[in-house]
Amino acid sequence: ARIVTLPGDGVGPEVLDAAVAVLEAVAERSGHSFEFESHLIGGCAIDATGEPLPAATLEACKKADAVLLGAVGGPKWSDPQAKVRPEQGLLAIRAALGVYANLRPLQVHPALASLSPLKNEKLKHVDVLFVRELTGGAYFGAKTRTTDTATDECKYTVAEVERVTRRAFALARERRQHVTSVDKANVLETSRLWRSTVTRIATEYPDVKLEHQLVDSMAMLLLTQPARYDVIVTENLFGDILTDEAAALAGSLGLLPSASLGEGTVGLYEPIHGSAPDIAGQGVANPLGAILSAAMLLRHSLDLDVEATTIEAAVSHVLSNGPHSRDIGGKAGTAAIRDAVIAALD
Amino acid sequence: ARIVTLPGDGVGPEVLDAAVAVLEAVAERSGHSFEFESHLIGGCAIDATGEPLPAATLEACKKADAVLLGAVGGPKWSDPQAKVRPEQGLLAIRAALGVYANLRPLQVHPALASLSPLKNEKLKHVDVLFVRELTGGAYFGAKTRTTDTATDECKYTVAEVERVTRRAFALARERRQHVTSVDKANVLETSRLWRSTVTRIATEYPDVKLEHQLVDSMAMLLLTQPARYDVIVTENLFGDILTDEAAALAGSLGLLPSASLGEGTVGLYEPIHGSAPDIAGQGVANPLGAILSAAMLLRHSLDLDVEATTIEAAVSHVLSNGPHSRDIGGKAGTAAIRDAVIAALD
Ligand SMILES: CC(C)[C@H](C(=O)O)[C@@H](O)C(=O)O
Ligand SMILES: CC(C)[C@H](C(=O)O)[C@@H](O)C(=O)O
Repeated sequence: ARIVTLPGDGVGPEVLDAAVAVLEAVAERSGHSFEFESHLIGGCAIDATGEPLPAATLEACKKADAVLLGAVGGPKWSDPQAKVRPEQGLLAIRAALGVYANLRPLQVHPALASLSPLKNEKLKHVDVLFVRELTGGAYFGAKTRTTDTATDECKYTVAEVERVTRRAFALARERRQHVTSVDKANVLETSRLWRSTVTRIATEYPDVKLEHQLVDSMAMLLLTQPARYDVIVTENLFGDILTDEAAALAGSLGLLPSASLGEGTVGLYEPIHGSAPDIAGQGVANPLGAILSAAMLLRHSLDLDVEATTIEAAVSHVLSNGPHSRDIGGKAGTAAIRDAVIAALD
Repeated sequence: ARIVTLPGDGVGPEVLDAAVAVLEAVAERSGHSFEFESHLIGGCAIDATGEPLPAATLEACKKADAVLLGAVGGPKWSDPQAKVRPEQGLLAIRAALGVYANLRPLQVHPALASLSPLKNEKLKHVDVLFVRELTGGAYFGAKTRTTDTATDECKYTVAEVERVTRRAFALARERRQHVTSVDKANVLETSRLWRSTVTRIATEYPDVKLEHQLVDSMAMLLLTQPARYDVIVTENLFGDILTDEAAALAGSLGLLPSASLGEGTVGLYEPIHGSAPDIAGQGVANPLGAILSAAMLLRHSLDLDVEATTIEAAVSHVLSNGPHSRDIGGKAGTAAIRDAVIAALD
């Protein structure tokens, strides 16, 4: 299988190196073979080519079986008024690959409960899968700007809502058969379209229970009743906010993975943490988010479910027994964590 | 002073009765006199007149010194596809009164720390004042809908951002001199206008420190470092989500007040909880959110700071010593809480 890696900026290259090493160790043990090809995206791509998503990168991604991304951005390119910004590369590749469904699983490992801001009894049995719509909404709508005024248009079509909803219901079927759809239907027209579309699609999945929540209530319920939720499906911007809120529950952003999937197109996998410029280049970044993203890549793009589960079990073993990286209260560096995960594969 | 009350739906009338009783008790003790006049808004207004904000209600509000609102909405009017909805009354009165700055203070009373989903050490020293822009953004932008597509426009003018920013900085001056402005400037054009305007206005307040956060990071930081924040200013929809998230920290929505202020116009005061149809009519709703909103009314619209502080101290006394309503783990009804607050005024 051909995997394109997009290390990006900051700690991106460090965590991707670790994830690639784990994939290579898995390949060796399982007899599969993975070819890796690295390309530029984000700030480093701007520096090299003037563009946050160079054409060569996109071309390579389109031909690959899967794409593994590190992180983009950093203080060097952080002026939000600049014409060319690293984040544009991320948005452009999501759109170009058509990966409309962003899966962000959240569980709280028992060894990390003490790091979570939430009380321990709240964290028990938390096992949520967010399905965030990733290629629509205000992120990609028309924008205008004059000296006096700015606008962003949030737009959704029925077809866009249908496909991400079907993905969420199909995933819920394999889990606890419960979908919570989040919108702001008491205020937004796009949310009313969202809600009526989700309600209609739900009838195709009579074995799955559907619940609607307003985004403000959901922001509260994630804290008061996190264990109640199974699959949570929502539009792009609400998903951005709610998944970061939920990530705080896990004790560290460093270990959360994500998968962005389209319809028969190449999948895009990335840890949900950012480029963490404050610790970049020091060899101390937590690679577990990237490693777990690699596991999702094996499962969703290469159909290697057993191998994915092996990586996840190894990560869980390392979380239980150490070593731990700094973000979760330990002292181990990126390489030590990588080696511990590889050792735990056997 | 002339106060218009808008009890609205569900528990709205019950909590407003209690708040009015407290205001009357304060009037008696302080020698001030308040006249109350009640009008329709929300679902009950739709039932009576076909309109969620009848002209008579708006006219009365415009002539009043302040408006105290209960809550709107309920299952009877809950179809989000309906042409006329209770929430429209709320949005319409906010717009018509021009109350662009929605103040939502958050502190966690020590007696309620056990109810919060957050660990106790996180809750210490939490004292945040949200200033949510209330009359702009996607709430009031153009909307379109066809069979296939829906759109919402989020629009901000420089003037809209300036006035709410100045309000936030002026409030921060009286507090801990720290403003955190929340946007999504890496994606949204309105957020870039927001950020550059806030940055410019901040130079008028050199004694106040300004920090910018992206809304997704802020959703996380509210949980991991809640005590770091003083005044948080943000646009309408982000404010809706973040204030509900923050409200979860307090242990119950039932006791959080809000004030919506304009420029020399009548202020609008309301508890942040909703109409709670599940417990409406049972006399068990927590009236403290409404009572604390009445205290904010005295402070911000009638300049009765001493009287406002007296009410707040009485509420704090009741939280420390009981009785407690059901939402905070007690058994007392609305009337018992009201009476306890009144008794604690002396
Ligand atoms: C970097 C930013 C554009 C991005 C987003 O908002 O989608 C990030 O926050 C994410 O969640 O992947
Ligand atoms: C009822 C609803 C329209 C309202 C809002 O979104 O503003 C409410 O959630 C609030 O926060 O006051």
